[in-house]
Amino acid sequence: MSSTNTRVVLREYAPDGVHSPDCFAIDDSQPIPNDKTLKKGQVLVQVSALSVDPHQRLFISPPPEKPTIKSAFRYPLGQAIFGIGVGTVVASKNDAFAAGDKVRSESMPWQSYAILGEDQLIKLPASDSALSDHVGVYGMAAFTAYLGTIYAGKPKAGETIMISAASGAVGQVAVQLAKARGLRVVGMAGSDEKVEHIGSLGADAVINYKTCGDLNAAIVEAAPDGIDIYFDNVGGEILDAALLNLNPLARVVLCGSMSTYGAAQSKIRGITNLPSIIVKQVTLQCIYYLPHYGTQRETDFLQEMTRLVEQGKMQFRVDERIGLESAPQALADLFAGKNFGKLIVKV
Amino acid sequence: MSSTNTRVVLREYAPDGVHSPDCFAIDDSQPIPNDKTLKKGQVLVQVSALSVDPHQRLFISPPPEKPTIKSAFRYPLGQAIFGIGVGTVVASKNDAFAAGDKVRSESMPWQSYAILGEDQLIKLPASDSALSDHVGVYGMAAFTAYLGTIYAGKPKAGETIMISAASGAVGQVAVQLAKARGLRVVGMAGSDEKVEHIGSLGADAVINYKTCGDLNAAIVEAAPDGIDIYFDNVGGEILDAALLNLNPLARVVLCGSMSTYGAAQSKIRGITNLPSIIVKQVTLQCIYYLPHYGTQRETDFLQEMTRLVEQGKMQFRVDERIGLESAPQALADLFAGKNFGKLIVKV
Repeated sequence: MSSTNTRVVLREYAPDGVHSPDCFAIDDSQPIPNDKTLKKGQVLVQVSALSVDPHQRLFISPPPEKPTIKSAFRYPLGQAIFGIGVGTVVASKNDAFAAGDKVRSESMPWQSYAILGEDQLIKLPASDSALSDHVGVYGMAAFTAYLGTIYAGKPKAGETIMISAASGAVGQVAVQLAKARGLRVVGMAGSDEKVEHIGSLGADAVINYKTCGDLNAAIVEAAPDGIDIYFDNVGGEILDAALLNLNPLARVVLCGSMSTYGAAQSKIRGITNLPSIIVKQVTLQCIYYLPHYGTQRETDFLQEMTRLVEQGKMQFRVDERIGLESAPQALADLFAGKNFGKLIVKV
Repeated sequence: MSSTNTRVVLREYAPDGVHSPDCFAIDDSQPIPNDKTLKKGQVLVQVSALSVDPHQRLFISPPPEKPTIKSAFRYPLGQAIFGIGVGTVVASKNDAFAAGDKVRSESMPWQSYAILGEDQLIKLPASDSALSDHVGVYGMAAFTAYLGTIYAGKPKAGETIMISAASGAVGQVAVQLAKARGLRVVGMAGSDEKVEHIGSLGADAVINYKTCGDLNAAIVEAAPDGIDIYFDNVGGEILDAALLNLNPLARVVLCGSMSTYGAAQSKIRGITNLPSIIVKQVTLQCIYYLPHYGTQRETDFLQEMTRLVEQGKMQFRVDERIGLESAPQALADLFAGKNFGKLIVKV
C-alpha cells in the first residue's frame, strides 16, 4: 500500500462537453492523515468503494458563462472530487463512531483516506456481508430505481412500463422491480449485448434505439397498448418519442438525462411533445434519492430488495474497476455509455 | 331570427399553422330542426353562448403526415366544429330534460340549434342568473385555473407562483385564487394593457415578456426567492426559462401551450431545461378539466368561486363577440393573442 493519500483531482472542466480521463489527475503529494490530524468531532475513514454516477457529469461540465445563484453545482478545480462511497473507520474523535465501524457517505472524497464530519456519515449495520453492496445492490442506484418505479410510478399489475438505459445501474433494477409487480416491461438500450442482458432480466420486449430505425414505430410495436409508466434515464429524443405514446393518466419518471449531460446547451435537442400530453393528464415526477434516505421509503426499499435477492429474483450487474488510478477512465466510460452495469471503483 | 340553422363549418385545416378566419365558412343551408326531427332520447337545444378555447387550435391544425391511433383529435372537414357551450332546451324526447331547461355541453356544435343526446348534456341549476356565466366565471377556464392553482399547485401562503398568459381566461382566475391564498404572484403577459390589468387583479409583479429583454433576468428580479409554482399556459421559451428558476419541490402546472399550438412540429422550440430540475424533485402535472367534472373538486371550485365573487375578490373579464358570424374571427383572435379576457361567442 502506498504511504501517500492518493487522490483523484479535477484538473479542468470537460471542454466541449467531452469528459476525457485527462480532465483528472492522480495526485500522490499528500500524506495519509492520522489520528493526530483529527479535530474534535471528526472521523478518519479508509475508503473502500466509490459509486461512479451519471449526475457527476454535470459537476464536471464547464460552468455557465453567466453563473447565477441557481447555477448547478460544479466540483472545484484542483481538489479531489467526491460522491457516494463506503469505507471503514480507522480513527475517530467522535463518540458516535469507533474504529472498525462501516460507514457510507454521500460526500466521500475520491481518495484513499478521508476526514469526515458526523453529518457526512451514516453508520452501516455491522452484520452486512460485502461493504461494496452499499454502493451496489442496496446502493443509491437501486434505491433510485425503487423510488422511480414504485413511489413515482405507482405501478398496477398489467400496466406497461418502458425503461430507457435499462441495462444501466438504475434501469436493471427497475426492470426487475416492475416484473415482480406484474407489469409488461419494455426495455431500451444501445447495444445488442445490453438488449440480450435486459431480456435475461425478464423484460417482455427490448428496443435497441441505435438500430431500430423509426423510434416511434419501434415503441408502438413493443408497447401496443401504450405506455402507462415511462422511466426516463436519458432525456432527449427517446423521452420525446415516449411522450407521444403515453396513455391517459400515465406517469413519467424523470430520473436522468444521460443523452444531454455532456452537451453544450445550444446543442441539446429540446423536448417538443409536452403539449400532446396535457389532455392525457400525465404526471411527470423528478426523482432524486438523497432526500428519501432515512424515510420509510428506504426501509421499504431495503426489505423488498433483500427479499428479491434472497428469492433469486434480483440480478445486479456490477462493472467493477480496481484502484483510484482507474477512476478517470471509469468516469469517461460511464459518460460514453461504455460501462455495462453499475460502475464501482474499488479503492 | 334566421329561419335556417346557421353553422360554423371547418373548410380547411390551418395551412402552415396560421389559423385565419378563412379556415371556416358560415353555412346557412340547413333548416332549423324541430321536435319531429328528434329521435327517442334526443334533446333539441337552442344554443346561447359558446366558449372559444385555446385547445381548439390543435383540432384545426393539419393532421400529422403519418397518423397513428394516438394522433391528437382533429375536427372533421365540412362539418360544424364544436366545443363547450350552453343553451336552453326547446324540445325533448328524453325524460331527463324538458323544454326550458338550461344545459351545458362539452360537445356543443357551433350552430344556432343542436340535437344532442343525454350523455352530451349536463343540466344546470334553474336558479342561476346569467346562462353565459357557465362559459364564464363558473366555466371551464375558471375550473381549470382552480385545478391548476389549488389541486396541482398545492399552494402554501408565502410561496411564489408565476403565471403565464395571466390576463387570459385561465390566468386571471389563477392570479386571484393565488392572491386569496396568500401567495406572492408573478404574472406574465405580452402587452402593457394586459400587464396593467394583471396588476389591478392584485399580482405583486408582472413581466411583459415581449419587452422585458432577458427573460431569465426578468424572472429573477420578479421572483427573487425563486418559483414554487409555475402555472404554464404557453409552453416554449417561457416554460423553459421558468424551469431554470424553480425552487426544490416546486410544482409545474402544464395547462396549455399557446405558443406552440399553431406551429409546425419542426418549428417548435424544444424544452431544454428539464435535466436541471431533476435534483430539485419537481413535479409537473398536466391539467385537463373534463375528467374532474362532477367530482368533489367541482363542488369545492363552485363554492370558492361563488364566495370570492360575492366578496368582490374575483373579477372575470369577458371578451364577448356577438353572433355565429363573429366566430371565425374570434378563433383567429384567440390564437393570435388578440383577445383580452375569456372569449365567448353569444349566439
